[in-house]
Amino acid sequence: MNNSNSYRDKYFIAGIDIGGTSTVIGLVDNNNQIVQRKAIHTATYEYAEAFFNEICDIIKNFDQLSDISLLKGIGIGAPNGNYYKGTIEFAANLRWKGVIPVVEIIQQKLPEVPVILTNDANAAAIGEMMYGDAKDKKDFIMITLGTGVGSGIVVNGELVYGHDGFAGEIGHTIYNPNGRLCGCGRKGCLETYTSASGIVKTAVELLIRKSDDSELRNIPIDELTTLHIGNAANRGDKIAIETFDITAEILAVKLADSVAHTSPSAIYIFGGVANAGAVLLEPLTTYFEENLLQIFKNKIQIKTSALPQNDAAILGAAALIKKEL
Amino acid sequence: MNNSNSYRDKYFIAGIDIGGTSTVIGLVDNNNQIVQRKAIHTATYEYAEAFFNEICDIIKNFDQLSDISLLKGIGIGAPNGNYYKGTIEFAANLRWKGVIPVVEIIQQKLPEVPVILTNDANAAAIGEMMYGDAKDKKDFIMITLGTGVGSGIVVNGELVYGHDGFAGEIGHTIYNPNGRLCGCGRKGCLETYTSASGIVKTAVELLIRKSDDSELRNIPIDELTTLHIGNAANRGDKIAIETFDITAEILAVKLADSVAHTSPSAIYIFGGVANAGAVLLEPLTTYFEENLLQIFKNKIQIKTSALPQNDAAILGAAALIKKEL
Repeated sequence: MNNSNSYRDKYFIAGIDIGGTSTVIGLVDNNNQIVQRKAIHTATYEYAEAFFNEICDIIKNFDQLSDISLLKGIGIGAPNGNYYKGTIEFAANLRWKGVIPVVEIIQQKLPEVPVILTNDANAAAIGEMMYGDAKDKKDFIMITLGTGVGSGIVVNGELVYGHDGFAGEIGHTIYNPNGRLCGCGRKGCLETYTSASGIVKTAVELLIRKSDDSELRNIPIDELTTLHIGNAANRGDKIAIETFDITAEILAVKLADSVAHTSPSAIYIFGGVANAGAVLLEPLTTYFEENLLQIFKNKIQIKTSALPQNDAAILGAAALIKKEL
Repeated sequence: MNNSNSYRDKYFIAGIDIGGTSTVIGLVDNNNQIVQRKAIHTATYEYAEAFFNEICDIIKNFDQLSDISLLKGIGIGAPNGNYYKGTIEFAANLRWKGVIPVVEIIQQKLPEVPVILTNDANAAAIGEMMYGDAKDKKDFIMITLGTGVGSGIVVNGELVYGHDGFAGEIGHTIYNPNGRLCGCGRKGCLETYTSASGIVKTAVELLIRKSDDSELRNIPIDELTTLHIGNAANRGDKIAIETFDITAEILAVKLADSVAHTSPSAIYIFGGVANAGAVLLEPLTTYFEENLLQIFKNKIQIKTSALPQNDAAILGAAALIKKEL
């Protein structure tokens, strides 16, 4: 349709995925290709302002971005990111407490560039909708399992932001009111069982409670990760398999509750923990069907995200800007 | 604007509220007034077809409806009512099992009249949005506490129907996976604790477990209702007050989960149980705030519906048609 010179129409969007552990800044071109990226460790920055100033410097120094005027915007996915206010508020998995005026901080350094921020899981959901398996889906849920447990809920083709911009916190629904202490200050949130550290806790509890041999016993507790547990499970380690079985059952119970709210046609699992593969997904599918209300049985797909893990959040964050162009 | 003769423009809509115990058929005029109504006992009809035929006869025999051509449509709120398919499917609180093709049955008797059906709680939510307190609200939840526990979820001004038309089943989210057996075949659904019969069960458990004096001890267990318990609580009866306290805490935990999904600005409590008033609403508000994630605290209203209980569901059901006119 448009035969104008593609060089002249070239533009970039910065897509930023802020996680509790690390943050990735990507430069996305007008063909939705991530042409450059850089990761930094979120947790090493004591002050939010220093962290976001560093991000601005990284963007400005991207080789591919020959001129800052080619940057059409910055899209950010962050834990407890607020779409309406451009803030991060009371994020349990970030060291900066209270309300962080992210958009304001960035616009002091880059005043000409539009900045849009949302929940990291919302950004992943937009990524799945624009580039992944959810292209033809109007109702779905994205669950991100990593340092925290986030979610992006899509209803009738639109992300659910809620009255205040904070909708989609399935990780902080309560599995057990007397359960594990959560970073949010409450007890028994889904996140305390199905985040990376929650799964490690479940494995350690099993190692203590059971006498089965396990290769996990050779790893110091402080070094144990979901990657170790996933690898062990895939080699048939009983404790590791049971760890994922328990994790899957808890996640299934809460996802069945989520279905009772918005009745999605698919649920996507995304993030580091999802990489464990079938050892998580198979029991999850079984328990999920068991826990669904009759009217929802046998019609909801539950699967891992179709997007490359390292790209989805960046592309989703960039898509926040792309939608506005 | 329109000075045409109002007599000539006169029309009617039938609004039908189907409950597990009773069903009310209302005739609503073009000024949103319920000009005639009749109630029948749902549970006495062994066959769904006989039940819906009776409803058609009642509508046709309404005195105020001088000519059937003045009837612009029939709107129905029903447990497990499916907006997309016009069916009632696997409703735990109705005696007709399986899939009931409601719209099809009615259109055999009244072929010229449009029929729209949805969840009874969705109809109440539409009623609240069109005629009640939610007129200016874009994100809210309606919870109906009666024979069953239903919900209508409104996101960004639109009812959430989900991919299959069955969204909004908060009554069938799980409070305790090892809890009370639910009519839906699963265990520990919210409905088993906060429906009318669930609250009576809690009162009976307390009467057995505790030795406090209580006026509820004078009522045969099979005759005990939430009205007795509400009246006793309002007279200071300790067992009755504790019954509502326990009910409120369970409802609060699950409503906090619902907030984490769609972040509404208000939650409306509706139905027979909500009539108990402050003995339910006061502890509910306290426990609700206690259970909310930090970012949601002190900004969500929780209150009883502003609509007369006998009118909301009928007007909401009629509004399904009115929206299409």
